[in-house]
Amino acid sequence: MDLQALIDEIAEDLLRVEDRGQVANYIPELAKIDARKFAIAIATLDGASYSTGDAREPFSIQSISKVFALALALGKVGDGLWNRVRREPSGSAFNSIVQLEHEHGIPRNPFINAGAIVVADVILAGHQPREAIGEILRFVRVAANDDTIRINPAVSRSEQEAGFRNAALANYMRSFGNIKNPVEMTLGVYFHQCAVEMTCIQLAQAGLFLANGGRDPTTGISVISADRARRINALMLTCGHYDGSGDFAFKVGLPGKSGVGGGILAVVPGRASIAVWSPGLNRQGNSLLGTRALELIAQRTNWSVFGP
Amino acid sequence: MDLQALIDEIAEDLLRVEDRGQVANYIPELAKIDARKFAIAIATLDGASYSTGDAREPFSIQSISKVFALALALGKVGDGLWNRVRREPSGSAFNSIVQLEHEHGIPRNPFINAGAIVVADVILAGHQPREAIGEILRFVRVAANDDTIRINPAVSRSEQEAGFRNAALANYMRSFGNIKNPVEMTLGVYFHQCAVEMTCIQLAQAGLFLANGGRDPTTGISVISADRARRINALMLTCGHYDGSGDFAFKVGLPGKSGVGGGILAVVPGRASIAVWSPGLNRQGNSLLGTRALELIAQRTNWSVFGP
Amino acid sequence: MDLQALIDEIAEDLLRVEDRGQVANYIPELAKIDARKFAIAIATLDGASYSTGDAREPFSIQSISKVFALALALGKVGDGLWNRVRREPSGSAFNSIVQLEHEHGIPRNPFINAGAIVVADVILAGHQPREAIGEILRFVRVAANDDTIRINPAVSRSEQEAGFRNAALANYMRSFGNIKNPVEMTLGVYFHQCAVEMTCIQLAQAGLFLANGGRDPTTGISVISADRARRINALMLTCGHYDGSGDFAFKVGLPGKSGVGGGILAVVPGRASIAVWSPGLNRQGNSLLGTRALELIAQRTNWSVFGP
Amino acid sequence: MDLQALIDEIAEDLLRVEDRGQVANYIPELAKIDARKFAIAIATLDGASYSTGDAREPFSIQSISKVFALALALGKVGDGLWNRVRREPSGSAFNSIVQLEHEHGIPRNPFINAGAIVVADVILAGHQPREAIGEILRFVRVAANDDTIRINPAVSRSEQEAGFRNAALANYMRSFGNIKNPVEMTLGVYFHQCAVEMTCIQLAQAGLFLANGGRDPTTGISVISADRARRINALMLTCGHYDGSGDFAFKVGLPGKSGVGGGILAVVPGRASIAVWSPGLNRQGNSLLGTRALELIAQRTNWSVFGP
Repeated sequence: MDLQALIDEIAEDLLRVEDRGQVANYIPELAKIDARKFAIAIATLDGASYSTGDAREPFSIQSISKVFALALALGKVGDGLWNRVRREPSGSAFNSIVQLEHEHGIPRNPFINAGAIVVADVILAGHQPREAIGEILRFVRVAANDDTIRINPAVSRSEQEAGFRNAALANYMRSFGNIKNPVEMTLGVYFHQCAVEMTCIQLAQAGLFLANGGRDPTTGISVISADRARRINALMLTCGHYDGSGDFAFKVGLPGKSGVGGGILAVVPGRASIAVWSPGLNRQGNSLLGTRALELIAQRTNWSVFGP
Repeated sequence: MDLQALIDEIAEDLLRVEDRGQVANYIPELAKIDARKFAIAIATLDGASYSTGDAREPFSIQSISKVFALALALGKVGDGLWNRVRREPSGSAFNSIVQLEHEHGIPRNPFINAGAIVVADVILAGHQPREAIGEILRFVRVAANDDTIRINPAVSRSEQEAGFRNAALANYMRSFGNIKNPVEMTLGVYFHQCAVEMTCIQLAQAGLFLANGGRDPTTGISVISADRARRINALMLTCGHYDGSGDFAFKVGLPGKSGVGGGILAVVPGRASIAVWSPGLNRQGNSLLGTRALELIAQRTNWSVFGP
Repeated sequence: MDLQALIDEIAEDLLRVEDRGQVANYIPELAKIDARKFAIAIATLDGASYSTGDAREPFSIQSISKVFALALALGKVGDGLWNRVRREPSGSAFNSIVQLEHEHGIPRNPFINAGAIVVADVILAGHQPREAIGEILRFVRVAANDDTIRINPAVSRSEQEAGFRNAALANYMRSFGNIKNPVEMTLGVYFHQCAVEMTCIQLAQAGLFLANGGRDPTTGISVISADRARRINALMLTCGHYDGSGDFAFKVGLPGKSGVGGGILAVVPGRASIAVWSPGLNRQGNSLLGTRALELIAQRTNWSVFGP
Repeated sequence: MDLQALIDEIAEDLLRVEDRGQVANYIPELAKIDARKFAIAIATLDGASYSTGDAREPFSIQSISKVFALALALGKVGDGLWNRVRREPSGSAFNSIVQLEHEHGIPRNPFINAGAIVVADVILAGHQPREAIGEILRFVRVAANDDTIRINPAVSRSEQEAGFRNAALANYMRSFGNIKNPVEMTLGVYFHQCAVEMTCIQLAQAGLFLANGGRDPTTGISVISADRARRINALMLTCGHYDGSGDFAFKVGLPGKSGVGGGILAVVPGRASIAVWSPGLNRQGNSLLGTRALELIAQRTNWSVFGP
């Protein structure tokens, strides 16, 4: 199959769609992004890469960073992490606090905000936020094999200023002893992690180890074990799109993780990694056209993990 | 790989495990099942089949029937079904009514009890319960290519007598207009469907069309479309084990559906269908050793959909 | 104070109000009531009575019947009742089922539907519904000192036909063992009890024992003990208006119980009993103008239990 | 009635009770209080006062301070306060955050923690915490007619250190715009207010204006309007004991507000104000023996607002 032709065609079709959803507006830096931005990039295990649209323009990966932070944290503390965060879909919004009250401060999974804050707390582990942030950034750069990836300080500052709901989650979990560092330090790590900026090409490359048993096919570096890669993929499939995870699995059939910046990273086990970007979001907070693009790619390629 | 040797070995290992969980006891017919029963059966797309343990002994498939009923209902009304039931993991117990109140009588997915009652209501569709029950039974028999499969009348009667919580769910949805037939008739269909009895060998055979793009590889009959088979697999993966679905995906990595009778049907897209049976349940109501058996099979075969 | 002049003046003022709320429409018999109906009746402990408007026209007392049923049930089983129903405000709608799941089938108080169904089940106690209904009717007739009070069969039939949500509540509690009789029999009692019809004059008279230490000042009959009358008043104050109970206490300052037929019974301990009727309801399902009338009466008479 | 003899007798009886509940232990300053402390004080409108036990020993009034803060805030901003906090019983624990999510950051009433934090925010109103704290302290001193009342700095410091759950509530409401000042400043006011220490004699005196139409009968000072006093009493009755408010109304029949320090202030409209202290708490977090003492006082005096 001619992947380049495929994504060019999909991009052309989708650029005609009127309803592009709603660009996230809770911080000015996201609100001002042009809703017409659109990009697709695919990296395959054999080293080829394909892209279309604004695939060389960096955007805020936001919650997609939770995948890399999880891989990093598992490398540091292993399966002990699962004592502090569960592995179940949440059945509620990404920033819901209700579940935390009913389940005594243990978040449902590492991809809702509460769970990702616990993961940041694990990475912080008594060090300075600056070091933890550096560690996350290094992990992403190694995965993407690209040292130019950076954190947007205006975004992280805005996240901090608008972060009352995340502060509520962190304080709440702290009251159950499930945040170990000072709340403002853990949140500092979390807010910086969300402000990482990448292009679709970088993001597709960075996700490739998840499609390849934990090993970067380009560099040969083993980022995580095969077992762990498989399990992160499973979590992406069941929990990667908040309360739209079931629908994403139903329509696309691939492990994926979305961010409110409009990006989605999808993994095709044994084959490829796909990054899409379209800033407008659907009601669950996932990229509207990005989801549609992945649905079309999966249909035409038969890449769904659920069968031909 | 020698699948027969593999499942024999797994069976031997697991038969030594002391903690087999708790046999379901809400109706006498399930409570009296011997907790030491254990079976595995695998049917592959190339027509081979493997089994070990009590694989020729019929057991109550209970909620596994929801997979067949869903396939049947989709065949009858198509995607209109999704106006009456959603496709998201529930984040709560199989018989929770809380979600229904918050979401106005629309169940989260077709595999929690409320959703399966809606599916039964769709199949009933103004006919007599007897006809709808017959239709479900015929569907299962065709899928399993075995006309001897039957419903255990003692079990369906017991379900009815103990079914107050399901009656609550059905009446509740009826108050929102999401049950269209008289409540007792819809429940009659549902309680009979849960009382279907199958052996592991029959069940593995019956699930094969889901691994094969909707077509039974043995008979060549197209049971459902490839697209629909893929989507049912996606639902099994995200919602097939109630509030343990995330964990099952994490550990096993295959679409699966459990029943309180201790059975689990798992689908390996493009390869095989697996049925396991061990009556003791874990806290989420899924077979404890059955889950463990599938985890071991997936590990040794590399059959996880999430990568090698 | 000239009570007759007071209520005439209040009636005149309120008849000019445009917004009368929404008449209950879940059963046709309630929906067809003229929204302009309006009545106030006051009965004082010294035997005087005052009324204005449509005070001699019977209306469906609906949930106001829960007060009389509670008094009757306490007389039959005493404080053992409190093992099956609590005494706390619910913090949710009159027909919510969420709380029942979280609290294992024990309703929060006897004035939400679930609690009133338990009370009906206690009164039924293995007898025939016909007998239990007769007993409730006799209790109301004795309290009102009026043998002409009757149950409207068209209303009770409609309640039954539209009663899916109450059937859900009853079945749900039955699954926890907190309904002892067959669900349909208990509901039969409950639906008939809700269909009692009374005039405001009858209702004010019927509530007088609650203002007088449990004794009917007219007939001298001791209906319940002084202690029990006080406690029923306390429950009316904290739970008598569903999720508008706090507001009613804040504005009116009297124990009261509303019904979706638009009636409210209020008790002035040591002084009087007041019945109002205006069919339009506010968002919490309580009579809009009826509440306003009671607020004005309490203001002008200084009858609030919370001080001068 | 000889009130002195009555409370002496009740104190004597209750001192024999073995089960005194659980002393609050979330901060060391409360945990180290002697569980055998016990005091009752009554102040009547005619200027008499009665006391027994440790009635001259200061204790941490904790949430009882919410009554004085509410009166102060209403004096500052009037009924506009009710746009930011409701007047309904919560149906959940004092520190629940679930309700806030369902109701968009508007607390159910001013006596649960979330509501009291909003009240503190209203008092703060852009000033320095020191000034707001001073204002609250002055209000309490004027009400008690006693300038020696003080805030225990060790307690307020401990509250701050252990206050993660309150910080979660405040940040959460801030995310909905229902906290207007910096979270840490509002919490500073709240934590200091909770650390006010009073004796039972001071507390009974301080509550007298609520029993007397808002006017201090001793000094003649009008603290608040009669209407407002009545409404605060209504709120104390429906919401003053968290999720035990219904039971307190049922058993005692008086407006009351408890604190985790083991104190309770009860108001007898038109007659008296009562303060009790016993540090052991029941499951809802209200003083176990204190509640019992008030129940006995209400029984013997016939002071229940719900009738003789």
